[in-house]
Amino acid sequence: MTPIERALREAEAAAARGEVPVGAVVTDASGAVLAAAGNEVEARNDPTAHAEILALREAARRLGSPRLPGCTLTVTLEPCPMCAQAASFFRVKRIVFGAYDPKGGGIEHGARVLAAPSCHHAPEVVGGLRESECAALLRAFFAARR
Amino acid sequence: MTPIERALREAEAAAARGEVPVGAVVTDASGAVLAAAGNEVEARNDPTAHAEILALREAARRLGSPRLPGCTLTVTLEPCPMCAQAASFFRVKRIVFGAYDPKGGGIEHGARVLAAPSCHHAPEVVGGLRESECAALLRAFFAARR
Repeated sequence: MTPIERALREAEAAAARGEVPVGAVVTDASGAVLAAAGNEVEARNDPTAHAEILALREAARRLGSPRLPGCTLTVTLEPCPMCAQAASFFRVKRIVFGAYDPKGGGIEHGARVLAAPSCHHAPEVVGGLRESECAALLRAFFAARR
Repeated sequence: MTPIERALREAEAAAARGEVPVGAVVTDASGAVLAAAGNEVEARNDPTAHAEILALREAARRLGSPRLPGCTLTVTLEPCPMCAQAASFFRVKRIVFGAYDPKGGGIEHGARVLAAPSCHHAPEVVGGLRESECAALLRAFFAARR
């Protein structure tokens, strides 16, 4: 299973729990999965419990280090400004995401956190991987709630 | 003790623990302190453990709600993009900060997260409260490390 496939599984599991379906995976330089998480905002009553934050923290715990050099964060949705900045703080090498998020995204949209001249560490970014599947999960989730 | 005085105490306590001296307090609409925290990045090995994030989470836990309407986040240093976005997600009414942070700040500097048109909730912002004391704490901390 590729990282984005694993992230999609996490997103599906999040949807099944009533969470906005976003999933994230952190892999090391060899491609091994260090951590995977889905959104837990509702379960934790915590708007900072985005999949990315949970996966980054867990990966750092596993490595015993607050820095994740050489690691890739793969996530089904373009990270928001909070998560983009967190990924920078964790010093990930690369961010790969699925669906673009014109409303809430903070990398290719909105505050474009990583493009600010004061951003000390800007990971490489690849957007649009398995975009249609990632976006379809979100669309189905919100359509069912309306 | 005013909220910024309490935040300064938290920042001093953080410095004594070897943490970058930043402190944060969340008060409710009546001015009662819901939560106070200092930076715990080193202690937790977690670059997301900024004082603001810890205080916001704790306030939400106390209220049993992920939203903190009517509340004020008071912090000794201009929040970074991650913390500015988190404060928006928690729906605080106001952010009051002490020292400006041209290098790492994300409100008046850098990504200016709350000014992005896609920012759904932009708290009121007051910067520069007890600015010189807040900045002096940081200067002394970094001077001692050089």
